[in-house]
Amino acid sequence: MVSGHIVKSFDDDLNHLVSTISEMAGLAERQLADSISAMSRRDEQLAANVIEQDKRLDDLEADIDAQVVRMLALRQPQALDLRAVLVALKISSDLERVGDYAKNVAKRTLTLMQAPVIGQATSTIVRMGSIVGGMISNVVDAYLNADVVKAQEVRARDLDVDQLHSSLFRELLTYMMEDPRNITACTHLLFIAKNIERIGDHVTNIAENVHFLVAGENIAGDRPKNDLSSSTIITVGDKTA
Amino acid sequence: MVSGHIVKSFDDDLNHLVSTISEMAGLAERQLADSISAMSRRDEQLAANVIEQDKRLDDLEADIDAQVVRMLALRQPQALDLRAVLVALKISSDLERVGDYAKNVAKRTLTLMQAPVIGQATSTIVRMGSIVGGMISNVVDAYLNADVVKAQEVRARDLDVDQLHSSLFRELLTYMMEDPRNITACTHLLFIAKNIERIGDHVTNIAENVHFLVAGENIAGDRPKNDLSSSTIITVGDKTA
Repeated sequence: MVSGHIVKSFDDDLNHLVSTISEMAGLAERQLADSISAMSRRDEQLAANVIEQDKRLDDLEADIDAQVVRMLALRQPQALDLRAVLVALKISSDLERVGDYAKNVAKRTLTLMQAPVIGQATSTIVRMGSIVGGMISNVVDAYLNADVVKAQEVRARDLDVDQLHSSLFRELLTYMMEDPRNITACTHLLFIAKNIERIGDHVTNIAENVHFLVAGENIAGDRPKNDLSSSTIITVGDKTA
Repeated sequence: MVSGHIVKSFDDDLNHLVSTISEMAGLAERQLADSISAMSRRDEQLAANVIEQDKRLDDLEADIDAQVVRMLALRQPQALDLRAVLVALKISSDLERVGDYAKNVAKRTLTLMQAPVIGQATSTIVRMGSIVGGMISNVVDAYLNADVVKAQEVRARDLDVDQLHSSLFRELLTYMMEDPRNITACTHLLFIAKNIERIGDHVTNIAENVHFLVAGENIAGDRPKNDLSSSTIITVGDKTA
């Protein structure tokens, strides 16, 4: 029963790997939610917690790296098993980046506390954050249940995030033009919004990797894109924003 | 000579993998240099070329992914060989991101052509770009020659990039406050500068992976950081910038 034993061990290893990914995703989702709560409630302590907790995501990524190296060296997985191991490696790298962006939101939150409140913009960012948080939660479900339909839904949802980001970009430029005292705060809000939009892109990467893992081929069609912020121009007196 | 044949084949595979990485790095470096030339010379055609060429980096990354899967499945590398294969996978993912950032610089360059020129800021960005371009070239040398000292130098160099980015951030906020007609252009320049600073971070990742590959352990000490832009506040009438 030696070969049965080896197969069983690979499954144990894979279960452990998947559960570490799941733990990482839960933590990344919480870091994002906390960073946004901290921003909207101007909660200094919560922002400081997010900054401090990021190290746990780095440690979990290092743990996954070590698990992957061990599994490749000892189990020499083939075909679907090999794909599962390599996809776990990619997903953990995307989740680590999600954590980095949440940490940057928290850092800028500490800075924003010294600047005037830009009310409406904050509530749009809260909405973007809650969509992206839902995407993280859904992509983990898709991963755990090998659900390609759900993975595709997550990818499609990123369009809403891009759209909110584009309109917020215009809005923030307008606030800056209205009153130069808003410029510092709006600049940090621009980067906070960009961070959340980037988190959406990383979650979309994960959705595409889940599709690849389950279907054995890349998801069909180019990634839908709806972020127009890179080409946005607002001129003084512009009423179109 | 079966086992000799297998060993020889692994070396051939690895040489091909390393040469694909080297090709990718050369292309990424050129994409960065071209995106910055396009910005400083307001060269629309060159910016359009950069946007179009990015697909080649995506294709090279997919090629490296396929090479890695094939090597893991057929050669079942161990120890240093396994590390070399996994490090190649990570480096190619960082180089693909470098390309994405260069593409975004090119996109924003097309937008900037419709806005007023912000002279001094452009020349600081050119300087940042030339440092980061040199870092890409040096990190590839470090990789090809297993040179940990050079890898460490690249990592240290990123401090200069962070410092230029922090001071440019302050400078751009000041220009925005001086004249609201500068706001759109300065905002895109802020993101261009951030893109180049992020490219520096990805090159630093590569330097750390080269160190890990050669030395078999992570580089000692936390990554030096010198980017203060997330905590920068400028108020109207501030003369400290």
